[in-house]
Amino acid sequence: MNDITAAILVIGDEILSGRTKDKNIGYIADCLTNVGVYLSEVRIVPDKEEKIIQALDSLRNEYKYVLTTGGIGPTHDDITADCVAKAFGVEISENKEAIDMLLERIPLEDLNESRRRMARIPHGATLIENSVSKAPGFNIGNVFVMAGVPSVMQAMLDVVITRMETGQKLLSCNIHTNIKEGDLAEILRDIQKETTSVIIGSYPYYNESGYGANVVCRGKNIDDIKSVATIIKEKLSNIGNVEIGEII
Amino acid sequence: MNDITAAILVIGDEILSGRTKDKNIGYIADCLTNVGVYLSEVRIVPDKEEKIIQALDSLRNEYKYVLTTGGIGPTHDDITADCVAKAFGVEISENKEAIDMLLERIPLEDLNESRRRMARIPHGATLIENSVSKAPGFNIGNVFVMAGVPSVMQAMLDVVITRMETGQKLLSCNIHTNIKEGDLAEILRDIQKETTSVIIGSYPYYNESGYGANVVCRGKNIDDIKSVATIIKEKLSNIGNVEIGEII
Repeated sequence: MNDITAAILVIGDEILSGRTKDKNIGYIADCLTNVGVYLSEVRIVPDKEEKIIQALDSLRNEYKYVLTTGGIGPTHDDITADCVAKAFGVEISENKEAIDMLLERIPLEDLNESRRRMARIPHGATLIENSVSKAPGFNIGNVFVMAGVPSVMQAMLDVVITRMETGQKLLSCNIHTNIKEGDLAEILRDIQKETTSVIIGSYPYYNESGYGANVVCRGKNIDDIKSVATIIKEKLSNIGNVEIGEII
Repeated sequence: MNDITAAILVIGDEILSGRTKDKNIGYIADCLTNVGVYLSEVRIVPDKEEKIIQALDSLRNEYKYVLTTGGIGPTHDDITADCVAKAFGVEISENKEAIDMLLERIPLEDLNESRRRMARIPHGATLIENSVSKAPGFNIGNVFVMAGVPSVMQAMLDVVITRMETGQKLLSCNIHTNIKEGDLAEILRDIQKETTSVIIGSYPYYNESGYGANVVCRGKNIDDIKSVATIIKEKLSNIGNVEIGEII
């Protein structure tokens, strides 16, 4: 449905061990959907050079864009920038412009070897400013390298979006029902067979007030969505309550 | 550090579009860490046969176990069971035992074609009971197929864990500091150089009371962790407050 594809590569032992719960994937997913970029795959890998490079090469060859999070801080386990340089076969060294950015926040006397690591940037990369903590991310080829701390990642993502080709937003209409998924599945399957421009999904819910399923219609054409939503409402109204939400 | 490896494969358009925020990865990560299984990679893919099979084959060949979530409900976009059967090159058909499980919750007259889909199981697989909604998951080879709804996934995971070879829990000690990451990075790097049995990680935090970094020591030997934590405290106490937490 969409030619502008992207993947996320989350880098960090702390996510895989469960110590840190990822908050970036869902945020980036919302953001990409809003600008018409189709998030097509996500991978989470540990802080291991071989794994990072392997995943990065696989994703950057398959999708239009790759956004990475994590591993660009000052400590010994922050190896993302070096891995990206290796994957692209370029040198990496201290970047003057990145040092200047760090100096906006860090006094010169505190700019020790570890902090200088955050200014090591692969050759040929363009910096991604970071309004929160100043240490920049960077992009090289079709890869955007961002921090893992959510507030910093979010500041970088605002910049990244301006550098991507964006598409037509995928519109979405939520149809709330109190119908069990097993009772609407056949009806939806038949409706889906008649349309390719609208993708119909169904998501069961269980909460204190009972259970049912939300039906979601997604597509680029608002009239097609309206038409499919109307058909769904017609067919389902015999078996339960059906409320068509706004198309957003 | 650990030979018992596992990967998670999350299947679902709704996670990639941002509509649903994944709650399973962090939960499974905690659970695996607690039983000494090393979560080594996570992938999230859409409801597309080719993508599911490709990721599944890649992960099941590389890791000891693969746990999948999502795509085993009654609707047309639930294609996980069929993809797993294809990946393993086996037939899939309605499973009598699975039908009996469904009948514990669903009256026979409501067992329509869609609900029966939930009882389609690849040949050679073993069912995974589901105490919440009865529709079972299954395991075949080294792959465990679970539901995506968190409460149901959690019920299945309790069963899955009993079928896995588990290991020695990776112990962890959190050392809380008010020291900026850039000020402790060099010290930690030097300490890490002297040990292979303890992995030292550093995680910056920013909150209302200020910022600093938590240092985490992970390993299997409690004495090694204690010893490294003591060295870290000694070296860092000159530059800030350092509190060693419990080893858990």
